Amino acid sequence: MATLSEMAADNLALLREKKPLIHNITNYVVMNYTANALLAMGASPVMAHAQNEVEDMVSFAGALVLNIGTLTDDWIASMVKAGIKASALQTPIILDPVGSGATPLRTQSAKRIIDQTKISVIRGNASEILSLRHADSKTKGVDSVHSVDEAADTARILAEELQTTLAITGPVDLITDGQRVVRVSNGHPLMGYVTGTGCTATTAIGAFLAVDSDPVSATATALAFFGLAGEVAGQSASAPGSFMIQMLDALYTITPDELRKGCKIEAE
Amino acid sequence: MATLSEMAADNLALLREKKPLIHNITNYVVMNYTANALLAMGASPVMAHAQNEVEDMVSFAGALVLNIGTLTDDWIASMVKAGIKASALQTPIILDPVGSGATPLRTQSAKRIIDQTKISVIRGNASEILSLRHADSKTKGVDSVHSVDEAADTARILAEELQTTLAITGPVDLITDGQRVVRVSNGHPLMGYVTGTGCTATTAIGAFLAVDSDPVSATATALAFFGLAGEVAGQSASAPGSFMIQMLDALYTITPDELRKGCKIEAE
Amino acid sequence: MATLSEMAADNLALLREKKPLIHNITNYVVMNYTANALLAMGASPVMAHAQNEVEDMVSFAGALVLNIGTLTDDWIASMVKAGIKASALQTPIILDPVGSGATPLRTQSAKRIIDQTKISVIRGNASEILSLRHADSKTKGVDSVHSVDEAADTARILAEELQTTLAITGPVDLITDGQRVVRVSNGHPLMGYVTGTGCTATTAIGAFLAVDSDPVSATATALAFFGLAGEVAGQSASAPGSFMIQMLDALYTITPDELRKGCKIEAE
Repeated sequence: MATLSEMAADNLALLREKKPLIHNITNYVVMNYTANALLAMGASPVMAHAQNEVEDMVSFAGALVLNIGTLTDDWIASMVKAGIKASALQTPIILDPVGSGATPLRTQSAKRIIDQTKISVIRGNASEILSLRHADSKTKGVDSVHSVDEAADTARILAEELQTTLAITGPVDLITDGQRVVRVSNGHPLMGYVTGTGCTATTAIGAFLAVDSDPVSATATALAFFGLAGEVAGQSASAPGSFMIQMLDALYTITPDELRKGCKIEAE
Repeated sequence: MATLSEMAADNLALLREKKPLIHNITNYVVMNYTANALLAMGASPVMAHAQNEVEDMVSFAGALVLNIGTLTDDWIASMVKAGIKASALQTPIILDPVGSGATPLRTQSAKRIIDQTKISVIRGNASEILSLRHADSKTKGVDSVHSVDEAADTARILAEELQTTLAITGPVDLITDGQRVVRVSNGHPLMGYVTGTGCTATTAIGAFLAVDSDPVSATATALAFFGLAGEVAGQSASAPGSFMIQMLDALYTITPDELRKGCKIEAE
Repeated sequence: MATLSEMAADNLALLREKKPLIHNITNYVVMNYTANALLAMGASPVMAHAQNEVEDMVSFAGALVLNIGTLTDDWIASMVKAGIKASALQTPIILDPVGSGATPLRTQSAKRIIDQTKISVIRGNASEILSLRHADSKTKGVDSVHSVDEAADTARILAEELQTTLAITGPVDLITDGQRVVRVSNGHPLMGYVTGTGCTATTAIGAFLAVDSDPVSATATALAFFGLAGEVAGQSASAPGSFMIQMLDALYTITPDELRKGCKIEAE
């Protein structure tokens, strides 16, 4: 059986060969950077959010990326409509619940998308992900999680309850579908000084879901690849402006073999 | 008579002298990059889309750029309103029918803009441009075009039918007003890895239409200049992040004389 | 008493220590650049504009930045709603009246925001600021201002009338709360070739208002710091693409001590 590192290398080669179309309904802040990141890594981005177009557009796509960063009710309605169509077509959907837990609109909107569509992967930080719990969840809140092991247990329970794969990103990323747990430790501190690196990681997961039907390995590939691009950029850039440009360069130049060697993916 | 290369050089000098205001109603993904490209080349960008403001704003503008990349019905209504006002003022309008042919909303919206306003230039790829045919067009579809000469004939017929100038961009760009045919072969492969290079070429056409009333030479200038900027960027950048930044630099540094020498414009 | 240069250095150190959340309701063109600028300088950006969310979001914020660059009535309504809440919470608000005076929608919208909320600072160029006068203002129009001294007098009167602090930016920036007058002369000519440098200066003022309750010294800090970042970028970049990236780098690398030495702030 291929290791996750080998899978990652294969996935990157496949992405560049197939150049899947990734349909994004995302926030205004990151649209340009995520589109450029998708192009650099080898995918084809399309951004379309009109309610009378999203069903047509998602029909051509290899994956649908939903991101609530600058949400309004109209945009959420478009996300739900696109998501229902994608679910029917068995097109993978990835959700980035930006700021869920911070305001009622965000929490409710994220839950509404989850309830009405079939989400393959949800990527967020710990507090965003934990905010998605149902009222009767068996998990505990953010404040009750005191160790890495507790975090993994909580994520596993929540992934089962939400019937999806969760990617909780941070210094070490945790990926679980409720059964398997995988950790990715690629990355660079300057990523926190560039807006939309989380959102771009999400759209990278979308790109790999379009070529790898296993949400866990697709997500591990995306997060390791994106984190490795940060590491490569950090070798020559020491401030966030240059760094964000060199990350785009790295997404283009990193080879499958370099990804295989450089990725830090560990299965539990 | 001045050659098209000499015209291009004169147009660039004139653009930097006059610094025309270019009113853009464009898509979210490229707004920042196109605004920066306009500033770098010497024009003044303004982005304004409110239905209760577009007529006022376009009255100050040297050209109006309409781009349907992230369209909704509201934005199309604004484009039509601005376009009707620009038509009345004889302000040149350029249309970028992003994705026309891909979804009904895009095709219908592009046609609606064309029907209700006086468009000077439409820039798109071959399939976008061919999607704009009327039902009774004498042209054939994309699949029936088998050679460069057939493409030119088709474009010429369509330009006449639509009573506009067409710019079909690709490895070699083809420009025709139904009578004249001009080809531009400047460019660089990395332009395909930066989002919005097509949209930015469109807004560059808008900038030159504000200083050159001949749509064919204005468009040839814009596409040669923009493609040359790609060539200059490609001399030092080898990946898309650095490349897109160096393209902005080149739009600022290329002199009229360098454009005259470097442009690859051929009239049939 | 600390000089304004010492205040600036202290403010920068405090910003990086406290990392205040800055809530922006701003234009599409600059969202990405301003978010990156805030992160680079040490603040935390959030962009949120939904009418059913802005009151919740602004409750977490250290300052609220309102920018009418790509306004519609809906967005202005959100700005007013957020502004009323911020006023009640005594959270500082800064307004960038982009294009006020150019179209009735812009002038009226800026005035509506000023009338209905408590604005700490308004930043704009001279014609934008002067367009905000009431019908019965004692100030004269742009065309009647013939000298630097007249400009200062006009600004002082207007600041008193509007009961706010004004920052009129240009080659030399003028800041006044109606009593004190401060001038900042940091900056670089290439800043005029990057879209949104004005808007980003505005959001920088927002960042420093979150850590310095005196609008005059907070604004002087922001404009000196942002202008110094332009000077630093201009030492190695000679064209606008590279320049805008190196400005982001400089916002990250300039130390409080460098700011103290490099800032050009003069109190009258």
